[in-house]
Amino acid sequence: MKYFEGIEKVKYEGADSKNPLAYHYYDQDKIVLGKPMKEHLKFAIAYWHTMDQEGADPFGVGTAKRNWYGENPMETAENRVEAFFELLQLLDVKYFCFHDVDIAPEGDSLEEFYQNLDEITDLIKEKMDETGIKLLWNTANMFTNPRYLNGAATTNNADVYAYAAAQVKKGLDISKKLGGENYVFWGGREGYEELFNTDYELEQENLAKFFHMACDYSDKIGHKVQFLIEPKPREPMRHQYDYDAATALFFINKYGLKDRFKLNLEGNHATLAGHTFEHELRVARTEGALGSIDANHSEEQLGWDTDEFPYDLYHTSLAMYEILENDGLGKGGINFDAKVRRTSIDQEDLLTAHISGMDTFARGLLAAAKMKEDGFIDEILDKKYESYKSGLGKDIVDGKMDLESLTEYALKNDKIENKSSHLEYLKARINDYLV
Amino acid sequence: MKYFEGIEKVKYEGADSKNPLAYHYYDQDKIVLGKPMKEHLKFAIAYWHTMDQEGADPFGVGTAKRNWYGENPMETAENRVEAFFELLQLLDVKYFCFHDVDIAPEGDSLEEFYQNLDEITDLIKEKMDETGIKLLWNTANMFTNPRYLNGAATTNNADVYAYAAAQVKKGLDISKKLGGENYVFWGGREGYEELFNTDYELEQENLAKFFHMACDYSDKIGHKVQFLIEPKPREPMRHQYDYDAATALFFINKYGLKDRFKLNLEGNHATLAGHTFEHELRVARTEGALGSIDANHSEEQLGWDTDEFPYDLYHTSLAMYEILENDGLGKGGINFDAKVRRTSIDQEDLLTAHISGMDTFARGLLAAAKMKEDGFIDEILDKKYESYKSGLGKDIVDGKMDLESLTEYALKNDKIENKSSHLEYLKARINDYLV
Amino acid sequence: MKYFEGIEKVKYEGADSKNPLAYHYYDQDKIVLGKPMKEHLKFAIAYWHTMDQEGADPFGVGTAKRNWYGENPMETAENRVEAFFELLQLLDVKYFCFHDVDIAPEGDSLEEFYQNLDEITDLIKEKMDETGIKLLWNTANMFTNPRYLNGAATTNNADVYAYAAAQVKKGLDISKKLGGENYVFWGGREGYEELFNTDYELEQENLAKFFHMACDYSDKIGHKVQFLIEPKPREPMRHQYDYDAATALFFINKYGLKDRFKLNLEGNHATLAGHTFEHELRVARTEGALGSIDANHSEEQLGWDTDEFPYDLYHTSLAMYEILENDGLGKGGINFDAKVRRTSIDQEDLLTAHISGMDTFARGLLAAAKMKEDGFIDEILDKKYESYKSGLGKDIVDGKMDLESLTEYALKNDKIENKSSHLEYLKARINDYLV
Amino acid sequence: MKYFEGIEKVKYEGADSKNPLAYHYYDQDKIVLGKPMKEHLKFAIAYWHTMDQEGADPFGVGTAKRNWYGENPMETAENRVEAFFELLQLLDVKYFCFHDVDIAPEGDSLEEFYQNLDEITDLIKEKMDETGIKLLWNTANMFTNPRYLNGAATTNNADVYAYAAAQVKKGLDISKKLGGENYVFWGGREGYEELFNTDYELEQENLAKFFHMACDYSDKIGHKVQFLIEPKPREPMRHQYDYDAATALFFINKYGLKDRFKLNLEGNHATLAGHTFEHELRVARTEGALGSIDANHSEEQLGWDTDEFPYDLYHTSLAMYEILENDGLGKGGINFDAKVRRTSIDQEDLLTAHISGMDTFARGLLAAAKMKEDGFIDEILDKKYESYKSGLGKDIVDGKMDLESLTEYALKNDKIENKSSHLEYLKARINDYLV
Repeated sequence: MKYFEGIEKVKYEGADSKNPLAYHYYDQDKIVLGKPMKEHLKFAIAYWHTMDQEGADPFGVGTAKRNWYGENPMETAENRVEAFFELLQLLDVKYFCFHDVDIAPEGDSLEEFYQNLDEITDLIKEKMDETGIKLLWNTANMFTNPRYLNGAATTNNADVYAYAAAQVKKGLDISKKLGGENYVFWGGREGYEELFNTDYELEQENLAKFFHMACDYSDKIGHKVQFLIEPKPREPMRHQYDYDAATALFFINKYGLKDRFKLNLEGNHATLAGHTFEHELRVARTEGALGSIDANHSEEQLGWDTDEFPYDLYHTSLAMYEILENDGLGKGGINFDAKVRRTSIDQEDLLTAHISGMDTFARGLLAAAKMKEDGFIDEILDKKYESYKSGLGKDIVDGKMDLESLTEYALKNDKIENKSSHLEYLKARINDYLV
Repeated sequence: MKYFEGIEKVKYEGADSKNPLAYHYYDQDKIVLGKPMKEHLKFAIAYWHTMDQEGADPFGVGTAKRNWYGENPMETAENRVEAFFELLQLLDVKYFCFHDVDIAPEGDSLEEFYQNLDEITDLIKEKMDETGIKLLWNTANMFTNPRYLNGAATTNNADVYAYAAAQVKKGLDISKKLGGENYVFWGGREGYEELFNTDYELEQENLAKFFHMACDYSDKIGHKVQFLIEPKPREPMRHQYDYDAATALFFINKYGLKDRFKLNLEGNHATLAGHTFEHELRVARTEGALGSIDANHSEEQLGWDTDEFPYDLYHTSLAMYEILENDGLGKGGINFDAKVRRTSIDQEDLLTAHISGMDTFARGLLAAAKMKEDGFIDEILDKKYESYKSGLGKDIVDGKMDLESLTEYALKNDKIENKSSHLEYLKARINDYLV
Repeated sequence: MKYFEGIEKVKYEGADSKNPLAYHYYDQDKIVLGKPMKEHLKFAIAYWHTMDQEGADPFGVGTAKRNWYGENPMETAENRVEAFFELLQLLDVKYFCFHDVDIAPEGDSLEEFYQNLDEITDLIKEKMDETGIKLLWNTANMFTNPRYLNGAATTNNADVYAYAAAQVKKGLDISKKLGGENYVFWGGREGYEELFNTDYELEQENLAKFFHMACDYSDKIGHKVQFLIEPKPREPMRHQYDYDAATALFFINKYGLKDRFKLNLEGNHATLAGHTFEHELRVARTEGALGSIDANHSEEQLGWDTDEFPYDLYHTSLAMYEILENDGLGKGGINFDAKVRRTSIDQEDLLTAHISGMDTFARGLLAAAKMKEDGFIDEILDKKYESYKSGLGKDIVDGKMDLESLTEYALKNDKIENKSSHLEYLKARINDYLV
Repeated sequence: MKYFEGIEKVKYEGADSKNPLAYHYYDQDKIVLGKPMKEHLKFAIAYWHTMDQEGADPFGVGTAKRNWYGENPMETAENRVEAFFELLQLLDVKYFCFHDVDIAPEGDSLEEFYQNLDEITDLIKEKMDETGIKLLWNTANMFTNPRYLNGAATTNNADVYAYAAAQVKKGLDISKKLGGENYVFWGGREGYEELFNTDYELEQENLAKFFHMACDYSDKIGHKVQFLIEPKPREPMRHQYDYDAATALFFINKYGLKDRFKLNLEGNHATLAGHTFEHELRVARTEGALGSIDANHSEEQLGWDTDEFPYDLYHTSLAMYEILENDGLGKGGINFDAKVRRTSIDQEDLLTAHISGMDTFARGLLAAAKMKEDGFIDEILDKKYESYKSGLGKDIVDGKMDLESLTEYALKNDKIENKSSHLEYLKARINDYLV
């Protein structure tokens, strides 16, 4: 290893190990509900947080110590590929994700950007072939460059729209080249600063057209990738169009994108929208649209996107339960859209942070699997909704009733008994599953 | 007047009047954008806040002084009708709204409830005929009674579902009897306390079935009322299904209810969902689903439904702008879903509070109308989006471009100029319109 | 048992027990850090939630099934005492807390209220003597009655101020009669609805005077109780004066109340103020003012006081760590200011809810004790702050440096090395302690 | 003018002017409550937002077009001084504020930083002498540089503490050199990321020592500046020690800093702490600690520091009312800690944004002055609190009552009448003052 010198491949050592560079719960080949943990947990590492972000925040510049800087941007970009694949191998992680600008410098023109991308993706492809590591998804960063100040596919400037299209076209070409399984749209600037100076309808329609063009191009090049929209309510914009799962699905359905689009859901984005993560997963899975997840955590009292590594066992257990109920994530995976804290400045922290994230999900999986095996939640639901399994309830579900027949029933039966939910007891039992 | 003794009919006296019992801005017959103010502002008074709520909150019992209590619940109910119509006449308000339980006591059985409702609606009908006052909408209270602890149309108990259906059937019968223009569903208990013990999909489906039954019954009795869903994100539930406009529209579209359902949007509910009120109006009007509004205000730092009377001119101006752009509210109106503060204990406060609410909306209308007349916002939008009116932009809008043709364009044109939004200046100009 | 018929005294049965009416972690006599669990965990039950509240919320009436209703309010009050002591004994809880109005009806005059209180406290005293159960604290409810619409000690109406004083005087007399260890002030209405019509300074001063009078009277009757202020930021008021621990301590110090007043801190109130519970405990303990706690939980996404039973192990572990560092709570205890959910309608839920709350705190204690025994946190702190133990750092702490000498040092030493916090790794290790 | 070529000095042209580069309400010499507007409104411009920040946010790089870039950092720094004073003169603003790093590059060593500061402050002094423009306050940026990742005066690293001291020493030297009226501490990194690995008490004590050293040095150099703490609850840290006005005052009082320290309060920071701006002003003025303000605005639904230019007339009117009640800000002023939006990319927007901010405050002043002249609020308060002006109330205020005498009174007088607040009417009247 060149960039992570002296570090051994990270192995499972069990819960009692005191080794920070070992897995304590993530035992890849352990069979859980009939398949190995690693199939339940298709982990991916995010290029941007790991290779490009170094602890900067709105009030401070980066703090991290990194050893991959070269003489010029392209040399740094090449070193980063090297270092990134070292890290993936050390952690034994099989997938990765990136934005175009993460991997290659934009240069001075679109043409130069394309060339840089070609060069770096050649290198990445080489590494992928060497290691068997796969591309979970890639995307285009259409929010950092000043040109996108008013959005990309929802910009007011047609030239910007064209530039965005050129990024996505290249993104799909790269996806094909690298065998990407999904392609993500996070509309960081697709929204508004103020509503009064926004043509909401035009922007929505332009966005839908943009997505249709992406579908068409994907078909044309014979790389029918799974598209994913990643909802987020706000930040950087005051309001973002893909506010939450329900809003994004409303849009997808309305504009005829249902067959090609699913959702990429993120924990921190869920809480910013006022939802739990499991809520967003449930909304998506009920619609058959649970595509992939961005795993991270946010302190709920903070009103911005903190992108912490997951550590909360409640969150990962309930999220994994939804994923198990969805029969897994299909083409999707669990991408750590998470960055080390500003004070975790050592390169080694990149390893321990991912380890703790993976262990947290592994523990979540174990808890969720146990709940399923025990029928813990199924039993609760069966009992709670039993009135719909026969008699009146069944007739309702079967669509046999109308207001009149229901009224007739109610007039004869208006002394109603409800049963206790025993909710406090049930929540205490969930604690037992976490252990 | 029996209950508001000594109070004269409230008249418009102009901005300089110091009379608290006069309108200062709401000049009913003044022509604004070609029609009288009163046609723009179809105000309605909410029976529940005005007649039934008396300043109670989770930590305190009611404080208000009211003079309509009788010897028994039915006598009180009758007095309330009398007092309510006095108030409507004093304020010269032409519409009202109510829940079933607001107007009549539930009694000891559904049958008794039906009888009480019949009796009181006879009285209301009489008053309506006498005064020309109309029913904007009615609804069924399916959240206060203990039976609804787990929801009404989304309950786990089929008996409860039947009872709810019986309330809605009666509600539609009453709507027909009183010539109601709309019928509202606010799903106060339609949601969940905890997701893990909730069959989200079954509950959604049962809710959709319920709405279809309401449509069918409305057709059957030949009273094709406009149905309205009123979104709210939470409270009393941890999560409510009709979270916001986009979520409710997702549901409406998905379950084939689009032809019969629009939205009844509320200011306070918007802010609880993390949106501005005008945002919710925009989402609905873009979908052709802006039905009616519940006018009130909430301090944004408070996390619950305060239902204050509107006083913020920014909010009412921007809301009225959306309504003007929607060409009015059609069958809908502006219902004061607002209650006097706990310390406004006098009966007279019911008048001054409504007056200030109406004046605030009248001022909002004047500001919005002036913006329209000046073309203030149209001009901003025209200039901002001008790139879509010809050339490349027009081709995008007309669906003539694809990723390849856009890329070709971008490769030749990657030095992009954006124009300033001058946002600070525009916001200062909005202040000029408020005056 | 009369009210909880058929229920056996709840016992510790260990983590594997499936008995909902057993303790799974709360093993009272187990020695933890040198003393039995029950001494670490001086649990108390709150009269109001348990005996008086029945699931009502702003949109619904009570749902709970209770069997202690008598023919008239006093009979009900007596039955409640009986039932309450049954519950305390069944759960083997040694302390309780109440507001005056919880235990006795207010009647038609202050005199009658006094008489009712005397009668009921006689009965309570009898029960206490019989069972050895003690009064952790009592308080006066000065927020529910309409007279308190503008506050009690911060009211604008001197007559109301006097009435409040009369309630507190009686409260202190009762405290003496029952041997209460603390006396609490929660200023539910001490705050404002709107600032512009509030004489903030006068209200603060009147509040301070009120507290001084309470101290004086306590001295005079020879019952030098520990006074506690319970901070809460808002609800029912828009702003409450005792916003959080720091604000309450600012007030206490400013008005010379430091010797007699500590804080009663609540989890849900902490989160409403934007803090973690452990933050509030830390602020208080650093000031030597950590008096007692109100144990409950709130979903952080809900903006009101949900008063759920605690179930989150992160919260209780970190809270118990603060309490251990404070060397316990002294005269204070752990009061379950928590109510069963609206759907937990059975009387038995009162038991299981308290059991799960106690088990959650017991698990928190075990985790915190283990952290202490291992020196987990001490070690982190020692390492993190080691620069202050010698050399320059020690000179800073010892007050030997000034800006000039520090500048001189810095000019010679401006290439600074910081060490990584390894925060992700540390948070993962906290998870290990929860198990 | 070199940097703002072609722009004329901005003048007052009245409310009807359509000139974006004119004042519409800020008529400097107009007499309001006995003194010219410019004395009420000691406006200052913030160097950082205006000269250094260019629309970057956590998801995007800067967008603004600026014409002051030189060949190297020092040349740019010099150009900025030139441009800044042009702007101040064009806007006729008499005060400015800066952090050390805003005006001069840090260079490679503390020594070099000192030299750069000396050079640039020479130039600034020259400009000040030329124009009569004054320094409202300066401060040290102790949050951007990586060394401050764990705080400055609350760092865990004594070397960092020394470096911070060296910055503050220089800051005070500069303050003396430039005749600064105040010196500000905003503790951007003084707080914690996580409580469990924080020695809260040590950090608080080190912070207090740091402030005392600053007082001592200020005395020693004979420049007894007014010190100001600027509260902010969070961002960049999870929790910041100077959470809000009350918390900062608790600290100031506790550590004996009361004589030298007041508060610098910011609108956006107030809302992040869950308060209105006027609340924070009231808390400070009641304590005699209202020092200065940072004028800006934040959309309350956004959980981060947006630092918008003020435009909301409600906020500025109520803030100006507090300032008038405080008899002005003394040595303090109104500093626009505000930045143009990311889409306001023209240099001219720097002018129109400040104009609209100043006009908004001018309108606020006019509204507040009118309220004072009319006795609008005084009358409300007089009437509301009249019970404390004689009889029982006066005895309470005069400290003549105790719990026993109050009880005696209450027993005779327990039928209490409260008066209505008429709050809705009062709020509508506030709207009349805004016009």
